[in-house]
Amino acid sequence: MLRVAPNHRERQLESFTATAQRSAEVAALVAEHPERFRVLTGERPTGLLHLGHFFGTIRERVRLQQAGVEMFLVLADYQVITDRDTTAHVRENVYSAVLDYLAAGIDPERTTIFTHSSVPALNQLMLPFLSLVTEAELHRNPTVKAELAASGRALSGLLLTYPVHQAADILFCKGTLVPVGKDNLPHVEMTRVVARRFNERYGEVFPVPDALITSTPEVPGLDGRKMSKSYGNAIALSMTPDETVAVIRQSRTDQDRRISFDPEGRPGVSALLSTAALCLDVEPVELADQIGDGGSSALKALTATAVNDFLEPMRARRKALAADESLVRAILRRGNETANTAAEVTLGQVREAMGTIY
Amino acid sequence: MLRVAPNHRERQLESFTATAQRSAEVAALVAEHPERFRVLTGERPTGLLHLGHFFGTIRERVRLQQAGVEMFLVLADYQVITDRDTTAHVRENVYSAVLDYLAAGIDPERTTIFTHSSVPALNQLMLPFLSLVTEAELHRNPTVKAELAASGRALSGLLLTYPVHQAADILFCKGTLVPVGKDNLPHVEMTRVVARRFNERYGEVFPVPDALITSTPEVPGLDGRKMSKSYGNAIALSMTPDETVAVIRQSRTDQDRRISFDPEGRPGVSALLSTAALCLDVEPVELADQIGDGGSSALKALTATAVNDFLEPMRARRKALAADESLVRAILRRGNETANTAAEVTLGQVREAMGTIY
Repeated sequence: MLRVAPNHRERQLESFTATAQRSAEVAALVAEHPERFRVLTGERPTGLLHLGHFFGTIRERVRLQQAGVEMFLVLADYQVITDRDTTAHVRENVYSAVLDYLAAGIDPERTTIFTHSSVPALNQLMLPFLSLVTEAELHRNPTVKAELAASGRALSGLLLTYPVHQAADILFCKGTLVPVGKDNLPHVEMTRVVARRFNERYGEVFPVPDALITSTPEVPGLDGRKMSKSYGNAIALSMTPDETVAVIRQSRTDQDRRISFDPEGRPGVSALLSTAALCLDVEPVELADQIGDGGSSALKALTATAVNDFLEPMRARRKALAADESLVRAILRRGNETANTAAEVTLGQVREAMGTIY
Repeated sequence: MLRVAPNHRERQLESFTATAQRSAEVAALVAEHPERFRVLTGERPTGLLHLGHFFGTIRERVRLQQAGVEMFLVLADYQVITDRDTTAHVRENVYSAVLDYLAAGIDPERTTIFTHSSVPALNQLMLPFLSLVTEAELHRNPTVKAELAASGRALSGLLLTYPVHQAADILFCKGTLVPVGKDNLPHVEMTRVVARRFNERYGEVFPVPDALITSTPEVPGLDGRKMSKSYGNAIALSMTPDETVAVIRQSRTDQDRRISFDPEGRPGVSALLSTAALCLDVEPVELADQIGDGGSSALKALTATAVNDFLEPMRARRKALAADESLVRAILRRGNETANTAAEVTLGQVREAMGTIY
């Protein structure tokens, strides 16, 4: 066993309920003193960002940024290969994501956008952090288990150690706040364990970050399942209005002309209602009543218009931003510089604490 | 399963016998064209270097260096914490090891001496490399198994992934030759697998290194077990002559005045004979005959003199070198600069091959 003081072990066992309660307290603190927090958030650039990302995370990030919270936003390019054998399209996905962020309101003057593979000192933290956790603890991580099952492959060394890499993401910039859905709480728990064990063993270097549980609406994909790049049921933020109309028109609904909201029985119809409702900020049931006997074609037309109208300002900004081909590169260069500086400072403190400066 | 082309799988199964045969061919090639090879070698700074290191590895390194082989020599400070919870004394062990190397004939103009924790781009290679191996492959590594058993602790994430970190050590500088004892062949095998898989997946970046199996004499510790810092049976290279006399005098022998070489029956007596024989470059049996009925005290006196005479020139050089307090720091600074340059070039090629340059 790694020798962990008993009080640590107890704290590790703190239930998700306790974490959720703590999250509510933290949310109140963030509202009062946004300047006290530093957020780490991000995603794997495995495809184009879509409406699910917008309503699920991007909108919340913009809100936090506007509230005055400092933010690091990682495009986790190494995490693309946790469960696949190729980095094809990673660069274009990264560039597209940066445009989506900017169009949605992420301000690179206030939020540091960076890529994993550009920050060696962050990645080096994997080494000391891996010594702080046992293989058994890595195995217990529910996200690792879920992604392993979904991948249908043997567990790679990178997927197994992914929670530790995520701890490095959060701790390299001394992040204190990590917005997560309930599913991702175990990652934050692992990060808290790593921070505490490091501090106890080598001296205080890391803050112990808090999870900020975000209760964002689940955005259904066009087939009623979760909206996901890999299901091919997504409306990408970077689509043109015509592409949006086309993809909505091709979605599978049914012959019943009476439109009703019934996610179980009518997944396709209900997915369109949910999507339109999110864009119009109304309830799906209201929309169903409004369409009445108009059938699928009226529903699809209404949904396409709602989505296109909603995305129109973002798309206009995106188009203007994309006109300057060097913009994204410049933003990433600057973000990576900021991230490298933060990582090098932290790594210096880690090496000092460990006595490995020569 | 990681999708590995069948010819890879077959090659992975190449037997140790084949590797040993290849090693003999490589040794011949090294003799003929030393300039074609780059060696990666090194050790964990867990304690002071001793006679076992000298006869086991350091002498061979000096020989390779003198033959004209380029060499990178890593002081693997992160690997200290694969199986322990502290980095206490790591810095002094590193400094002491550098002095021992220099005193033994390692020339920092020709050999790059560096420390793991100083080379972030090397450590970053862990990320892509971890994606190339499965957890099952990590578990099969005999050295991981042996060290796990010896540590008597739960398997840490760092010990489990240690073979991949060692692959990063060898490949960051495009090492082509790794001197190993037979026990460490599996590490080289893992490195060969990582290099091949990377090249196949992303394009040719890495040479596939060869093992150079060194058949060095086993140096017994003063109690007859393997000489090891952790057994407390070692004669450190940095001891004074008086300390050497004292530690040999305190070693456990027996009452039989007739000295004979019998490692099974008389481990203490035979360990002293072996040690003195190595230093005098004779056979232990010859020495036993020479001492005859002189008993333990004659044996100890002869051994202490043999060791002290043998180490005298190294100790003199060591003392002169140690007088300049800034020397070791300067050598490590320069070595780490060279290692960083090599690592950054290789990481740049890795990022280019993976399409993760933005």
